[in-house]
Amino acid sequence: MASPVNPPRGMRDFLPADKARREHALGIIRGVYRSHGFDEIETPVVEEHGRLHSGLGGDNEKLSFSILKRGIKPEVLDAAAAAGDPEQLADLGLRFDLTVPLARYYATHRAELPPVFRAIQIAPVWRAERPQKGRYRQFVQADIDIIGEAGVLAEVELITATSQALAELGLSGCVIRVNDRRILFGLLSEIGLDAEHHNRALITIDKLDKIGVDGVTAELAETDPAAAEKLRGVLEGVGPALAAGIPVSRESIEAVLPALAENDGIENLATLGSALQGGLPEGVEIHFDPTLVRGMGYYTGTIFEIAHPGSGSSVGGGGRYDGMIGRFLGRNVPAVGFSIGFERVVDLIAIDDNAGPEAVVLVTDADTPLDELMAIKRDLVAQGKRVRIEKRQKNMKTLLARVAAEGFTAFANVSTGTDSGSLNWRELAD
Amino acid sequence: MASPVNPPRGMRDFLPADKARREHALGIIRGVYRSHGFDEIETPVVEEHGRLHSGLGGDNEKLSFSILKRGIKPEVLDAAAAAGDPEQLADLGLRFDLTVPLARYYATHRAELPPVFRAIQIAPVWRAERPQKGRYRQFVQADIDIIGEAGVLAEVELITATSQALAELGLSGCVIRVNDRRILFGLLSEIGLDAEHHNRALITIDKLDKIGVDGVTAELAETDPAAAEKLRGVLEGVGPALAAGIPVSRESIEAVLPALAENDGIENLATLGSALQGGLPEGVEIHFDPTLVRGMGYYTGTIFEIAHPGSGSSVGGGGRYDGMIGRFLGRNVPAVGFSIGFERVVDLIAIDDNAGPEAVVLVTDADTPLDELMAIKRDLVAQGKRVRIEKRQKNMKTLLARVAAEGFTAFANVSTGTDSGSLNWRELAD
Repeated sequence: MASPVNPPRGMRDFLPADKARREHALGIIRGVYRSHGFDEIETPVVEEHGRLHSGLGGDNEKLSFSILKRGIKPEVLDAAAAAGDPEQLADLGLRFDLTVPLARYYATHRAELPPVFRAIQIAPVWRAERPQKGRYRQFVQADIDIIGEAGVLAEVELITATSQALAELGLSGCVIRVNDRRILFGLLSEIGLDAEHHNRALITIDKLDKIGVDGVTAELAETDPAAAEKLRGVLEGVGPALAAGIPVSRESIEAVLPALAENDGIENLATLGSALQGGLPEGVEIHFDPTLVRGMGYYTGTIFEIAHPGSGSSVGGGGRYDGMIGRFLGRNVPAVGFSIGFERVVDLIAIDDNAGPEAVVLVTDADTPLDELMAIKRDLVAQGKRVRIEKRQKNMKTLLARVAAEGFTAFANVSTGTDSGSLNWRELAD
Repeated sequence: MASPVNPPRGMRDFLPADKARREHALGIIRGVYRSHGFDEIETPVVEEHGRLHSGLGGDNEKLSFSILKRGIKPEVLDAAAAAGDPEQLADLGLRFDLTVPLARYYATHRAELPPVFRAIQIAPVWRAERPQKGRYRQFVQADIDIIGEAGVLAEVELITATSQALAELGLSGCVIRVNDRRILFGLLSEIGLDAEHHNRALITIDKLDKIGVDGVTAELAETDPAAAEKLRGVLEGVGPALAAGIPVSRESIEAVLPALAENDGIENLATLGSALQGGLPEGVEIHFDPTLVRGMGYYTGTIFEIAHPGSGSSVGGGGRYDGMIGRFLGRNVPAVGFSIGFERVVDLIAIDDNAGPEAVVLVTDADTPLDELMAIKRDLVAQGKRVRIEKRQKNMKTLLARVAAEGFTAFANVSTGTDSGSLNWRELAD
């Protein structure tokens, strides 16, 4: 008898039943995302080593697996030994998330992609974490991102699609917590903390779940005792409302943060909340949470995270990262993404079915109310269609030719007062 | 404007249309394979470095990408530099095929798998080949393997399922070339070549397409001029029949290789040919080719390869590798596999649809003629069912409980003279 053989440390094999279950769940997610007008893409599992270590990946950069260069010359090996730096011997690395590769992909292919690009990525990533229950060194993420849309429509589509995917997977009881980085920064200014200390303070607030109000106050007091005491006041003040669930509306947000009335983040969340009104499937709620930080340094606006009573940590999250694409492209492009933590979700669900839809385009005016637009989209998605929203542009011929080439077969115009019953469908020539 | 950014050398991004096309094709392949009673599994993309370099991967081992150990100590780095061997710094590597991981997987999980295990693996592999047209450093293979079946039924199921997958993909005009390693070795003995030179002679014969009969004869003459001249006689003798297409039957094989009448490989191929009689979909033919070698050293019996007029090289291949599992498990287990070269196939096809089938088991006696058994299986598959063949065993209760647990809902007994119309279906309790 040979010695036992196992997959590499922290990684898993999947037996047939597990694999079937995973593929089924991924098929549901993929189907919902496609029905919501997103397109799946794929990148190689590796990226250039330097690109993975450019500072955009935050702490995950330290957890990345590096690939040895091929044909390393003796002098290169000697130089790495002399420098005590084995990473000099790597030219590639396994991706640690799907966001850095997406930004690189968009920079590579922007000319071949629609102006507002809705991407699906369902793929494994690798992190050299200490193996523990529910944490693996190879795991699947299911991401949707919208690149090129500066308005809150992007967040609304992402949250709607993600909510429906969770609902179709049968995961009820989800709460989506939302915040805006600008509210956090506004709050830190309001309590008198110098701007230079803001990023560090966010790292402190991010630990609220673990260290509590006292811990956060104590840690911030090392930098600025007066600001720390004011922060304690804010945190204690919002505590009861937070526990009860704060609706995402201007009134509710201003009620818990009265000093921040002119903040752009509040304006943003108020629009978001009203657009999502009644748009979430049964079993999914959305709450404002002024203490939500999200770890990644690249977020610039809306941030969100999904909590589920069956999981100790979040089962998904994302946010707006308007500065990141520019790092690869040389000009800024707005972007926002939502990632489902597939490994956590797949352990929480029991599964059923879904099917292959007709694909249609809603051409909308810039001033169409988002809640009306989203209500129409929801109706169509509920009828089994794949639905893409496109904004009216000067050269409609170009737009329609493009969506026809992408496989859409009909379009309808949506403006204020349109409802899904009054849509005037026209065929797209292919 | 930033400098252009690209995926790593020799690797590809997939735009939405390409990705959709690939997933669709993979869905068809997966569907056909499932309907034929195979089960999908998954392993991590990396395996232990030593396992990938154990000699089972042939030339592919040299093309593997290695992963740097985490937390390399200075003395380890110094030692690698002193030895001039950067591979000492790697503990893992990206898999270069799906066969080595499958053998490892089977050794790990054999207790949780059915005695005859029909595996589907559809996944990427990595090889550091010199990038060129149609050859990539990350590419997808679609493999089916049957582990634990020593009889030719395994080859018959593999060839039938693979043929149907190609037909459902719309790839007509395929020719499956088959041979048996034992015929090759018999031939080399017959021409008087010492056994110690056999493996090297196979490498020479494998180059027939490139260097012709003269080239093969000249290369073998360096070792044994008399044997080389006899081999020339054999190759020139089979040439015309080979060009016309040699049926896979005892008569046809013995006609081209009259001196090898008692060879086990001929017996094997004769049984295979008769079991496949009328069983291949329109557009797929099968021919005997005594010059087919296949590169990998681990093959022990039947070998096969798919040629298509649209592709300069083969679009798939495989064979029996009865010794390999033993390298991981410590005891030999028979195994045979068939791999579709997905990247080549996907470029040759236009695509349509398929659906989710009812799953049934055919329980067969050991002496049921394979052509009858396969005719029944084909009928059922054509009716849209997922069909598993199981051999009758003493403890049928165990067998039926297992397949019920695997999701099969009915079974029928097949023995000599049964046809698909006379099957007596019984429900499987779950």
